[in-house]
Amino acid sequence: MNEVTLSIDEAKQLCIEALTASGASEINAEITAEALVRAEIDGQKGHGLSRVPSYSAQVKSGKVNGTAQPVIEDVKPGLFRVNAGFGFAYPALRMALPELCLRVKQNGIAAAAIHRSHHFGVAGQPCEDLAREGFIAFVYGNTPKAIAPFGAKEKVLGTNPIAFGAPLDTDPLVIDFALSTVARGKIMAAKQAGRSIPQGWALGPDGEPTTQAETALQGSMLPIGGVKGAALALMVEIMSACLAGAALGAEAGSLFEGEGEPPDLGQVVLAIDAASLSAGNFSSRIKDLAAIYEELEGARLPGLNRLKNRKTAAEDGLLVPGPLLEEIRHIKQ
Amino acid sequence: MNEVTLSIDEAKQLCIEALTASGASEINAEITAEALVRAEIDGQKGHGLSRVPSYSAQVKSGKVNGTAQPVIEDVKPGLFRVNAGFGFAYPALRMALPELCLRVKQNGIAAAAIHRSHHFGVAGQPCEDLAREGFIAFVYGNTPKAIAPFGAKEKVLGTNPIAFGAPLDTDPLVIDFALSTVARGKIMAAKQAGRSIPQGWALGPDGEPTTQAETALQGSMLPIGGVKGAALALMVEIMSACLAGAALGAEAGSLFEGEGEPPDLGQVVLAIDAASLSAGNFSSRIKDLAAIYEELEGARLPGLNRLKNRKTAAEDGLLVPGPLLEEIRHIKQ
Repeated sequence: MNEVTLSIDEAKQLCIEALTASGASEINAEITAEALVRAEIDGQKGHGLSRVPSYSAQVKSGKVNGTAQPVIEDVKPGLFRVNAGFGFAYPALRMALPELCLRVKQNGIAAAAIHRSHHFGVAGQPCEDLAREGFIAFVYGNTPKAIAPFGAKEKVLGTNPIAFGAPLDTDPLVIDFALSTVARGKIMAAKQAGRSIPQGWALGPDGEPTTQAETALQGSMLPIGGVKGAALALMVEIMSACLAGAALGAEAGSLFEGEGEPPDLGQVVLAIDAASLSAGNFSSRIKDLAAIYEELEGARLPGLNRLKNRKTAAEDGLLVPGPLLEEIRHIKQ
Repeated sequence: MNEVTLSIDEAKQLCIEALTASGASEINAEITAEALVRAEIDGQKGHGLSRVPSYSAQVKSGKVNGTAQPVIEDVKPGLFRVNAGFGFAYPALRMALPELCLRVKQNGIAAAAIHRSHHFGVAGQPCEDLAREGFIAFVYGNTPKAIAPFGAKEKVLGTNPIAFGAPLDTDPLVIDFALSTVARGKIMAAKQAGRSIPQGWALGPDGEPTTQAETALQGSMLPIGGVKGAALALMVEIMSACLAGAALGAEAGSLFEGEGEPPDLGQVVLAIDAASLSAGNFSSRIKDLAAIYEELEGARLPGLNRLKNRKTAAEDGLLVPGPLLEEIRHIKQ
């Protein structure tokens, strides 16, 4: 494929220009561009520059309020809400994090619920940021429906990632993955290439396992671990949509299409002062655990690819598909 | 099999007598018996009366301090620690819950870390209790090593359950399962019956998949969802052992054998005021989600078996294997 190398700054500038040209405020465009480029740097291209055309279309149509200013609402010493104002999720997350840190320092634990929100990208990003402050962090967010309840045919739950961060040496340990066996993008790629898909990825609309990509796209994604994974996806749905008072994955519209109602998704960010709760033992205990992994043949801690990709991007820049680059460059109001 | 029907009160009295005869204090025996009988009622026999002989042996040997009195240590407004004093976990959990509720009412969110602890039984029990108070609840606890890190041959992580409770109508929604594909007990049963086990349950000591129960028992349990489930087991290990400042699953001794050092396991209980964080929307949102499940063919919410078993036990009492009953009755100091 025709790929073009961009510097990190060039990529960010390109995103900002596309988003502001579509009607986003400078500040929202900048914060959103930073999150997308950070995903691109870490190799999570599904949440990277590939989102710019659909983000722009949604700002143009008003489905995303590009000039929204998030507002913090106090709830209890350890709890607050952030109204994202039907804008992008990133400005709300950006506002939530320092407030969350303050409250964790005071209370030892705190949580923020973001509502009237949108696609929140790489859930591991805020987890990593909070872990760098010395905190254990969880991010819960739902996505439009993709997974059927165990035993059912219709999709109800999002692919609902599990995201967790913990302080560890210079780079936090970050766990971040969707609860579907694979990303939906892999099935779309198989369809485009005319390939079949392995058993265990998806069900057809009849609720039966399928190896046909086209049938899978009309059906539902299979969760990891069968009934257990489906329960985890339900847990994430409750921790995000219900706890933020936002839309269920079953109600939310597309995060890709320009048209339609705002998806009104919810995210909950939770952080814990690990050193305090462990009476000062956390740092040595997680190092002991990491040391077991390092010494064990074949074992590796999760999230290491991210760090490798980051190093490559810093040295060599970002490889962006030519057609995507052209599409972004041609975004005008 | 020869089974005997006991009333719930008879079962509880039997546990109390065995534990006090072994050297446990009245109060610790009573609290522990309640947790075991509650597990038995809910059909979770692996955490029920079957534990009484090994619990008694551990009190007799001093591996469990049967007269320990848990002590609360304040940390921050939203955090506290409970020193279980190398006693049973249940008295520490019993002490933690009302304190946790008080702090959640004040702060909106709070967490308790229990250290110098032991087998904590059905993690869904405290989750359910907290959900009945209107709170979202998580319980994190590790267990002795059973699962290998993804790609490795040696077991490092416990079967580390995920446990979650959320308020919903009269009975909370409770999610509670180990991160191994199946319970180790199923492999032990297959060995006793001379049966092979399905692919996907376990690895042999060489790190290769096995269908031989004997080989599996020398090897490691497979986590749900491959690399993702192994990461979840790691997350639970960090949230319990590291965050409580307790022993890693890789360090902890057996929860069954009478001899050996105290396992020194850790548990973390976390609760959130769901109504407050959701600005009053939680109750209606989770009802909407539950209604989707109820109307969808084939779908069912997790944890319903528990309620069915509870109803059966209330009506018909508890069916206990005759040999186990004899063994418990013969426990003397």
